[in-house]
Amino acid sequence: MTRFRLLVEYDGSPFVGWQRQDNGPSVQQAIEDAVFAFCQERVTSVAAGRTDAGVHALGQVVHLDLTRDCPPDTLRDAVNFHLKPQPIAILSAETVAPDFHARFSATGRRYLYRIVNRRAPLVLERGRAWWLSGSLDADAMAAAAERLVGRHDFTSFRSSICQAASPVKTLDRLSVERIGEEIRIEAAARSFLHHQVRNMVGSLKLVGEGRWTADGLSAALDARDRRAAGPTAPPEGLYLVSVVY
Amino acid sequence: MTRFRLLVEYDGSPFVGWQRQDNGPSVQQAIEDAVFAFCQERVTSVAAGRTDAGVHALGQVVHLDLTRDCPPDTLRDAVNFHLKPQPIAILSAETVAPDFHARFSATGRRYLYRIVNRRAPLVLERGRAWWLSGSLDADAMAAAAERLVGRHDFTSFRSSICQAASPVKTLDRLSVERIGEEIRIEAAARSFLHHQVRNMVGSLKLVGEGRWTADGLSAALDARDRRAAGPTAPPEGLYLVSVVY
Repeated sequence: MTRFRLLVEYDGSPFVGWQRQDNGPSVQQAIEDAVFAFCQERVTSVAAGRTDAGVHALGQVVHLDLTRDCPPDTLRDAVNFHLKPQPIAILSAETVAPDFHARFSATGRRYLYRIVNRRAPLVLERGRAWWLSGSLDADAMAAAAERLVGRHDFTSFRSSICQAASPVKTLDRLSVERIGEEIRIEAAARSFLHHQVRNMVGSLKLVGEGRWTADGLSAALDARDRRAAGPTAPPEGLYLVSVVY
Repeated sequence: MTRFRLLVEYDGSPFVGWQRQDNGPSVQQAIEDAVFAFCQERVTSVAAGRTDAGVHALGQVVHLDLTRDCPPDTLRDAVNFHLKPQPIAILSAETVAPDFHARFSATGRRYLYRIVNRRAPLVLERGRAWWLSGSLDADAMAAAAERLVGRHDFTSFRSSICQAASPVKTLDRLSVERIGEEIRIEAAARSFLHHQVRNMVGSLKLVGEGRWTADGLSAALDARDRRAAGPTAPPEGLYLVSVVY
């Protein structure tokens, strides 16, 4: 038995998310089917981040075990071949120690949320960013975002179906930067609660619109009540960028 | 009669190109239909660059005349409304002098050609760049590209159906830069021959693969024969970035 670690990119648009579900195609199922098509082994793949429906990945990390002996580059190319035309690509593959676990060995996760802030609707970035046509103050968003960095009870930014044992997480970074018409929000932590990034972005949007102050954001955090924070930002702006081990 | 100048972005994938044609939807037709839906005026729109099928635009410039008096921002928003769901957006609109001509007043055009050079197929950039899986030497491409800069007879890089009066053009810039797995080729000139950028990129690819030297590229230019140069690069990597007046 050999354990493989895969670096995976996908366009989340057509999928119900990473995890296999009854209600539609998942990234996990697509990868496991492609592995089966290649070597007739039924594997279970494990991902570092179980991204939701519509969320993209630039650097998802996945592990799976094969009984067959196989050069990693062959596995990468063969799985890519069988994944076509689905928008999933194995960027690289390598063999790892049998105790490597894509999810439990991870010590950090980095997400990017892209907002395009302009009057005109999205064209080339459609499905790749959140379109907000009203003017946003990115500097105010950046200053307010600092209020969320650190170790906090993030109940206010946690989905009601979140299965994490504790709502307390340490947010290492939450940066907001405007580059032309794009606002890029980067979030880094050991791990995140369900919907945490999208819920933080939904509240930062209210700050950018001038409807909330940084103090308002702090108050929402302190409330430890999902209803105190802003709405959930849509999935198409979110990217799992990288995982640290 | 008021002349309007529009800045237009589009995803070229679903279109036969800028220009109205019998064999499919064009960007020109879509814009003229949207203007008609807004104000019931049948206009003829003129673009700075008549992009080919599948070629994208980040900053196409278009002019058209309306008899109706209309604030430019209203025209922009109304045309965008009627363009939905087609992947075309009016980024801005302004009134201009009646002698402004999007095509004939232009004194410079800038194009970007995007190559993604990696083993794995494209996912998030599918339809937005040329995927080349074999390793390319971008430095060799950059050095060779310099051979094409300046005033030359570009017959070797001109489509057989090009209607320009002369094959002599002055290429102001042809830069090649690698940023990670992406190779960005920027071309600037007062005007280009039909397929000139894509034909230059098709030859630079041969240099990047080590199949051609810079001297080979110079020889192709000097041959003044389309058969001496490389194949035409695909349209999905090409973007009309901006037009200078």
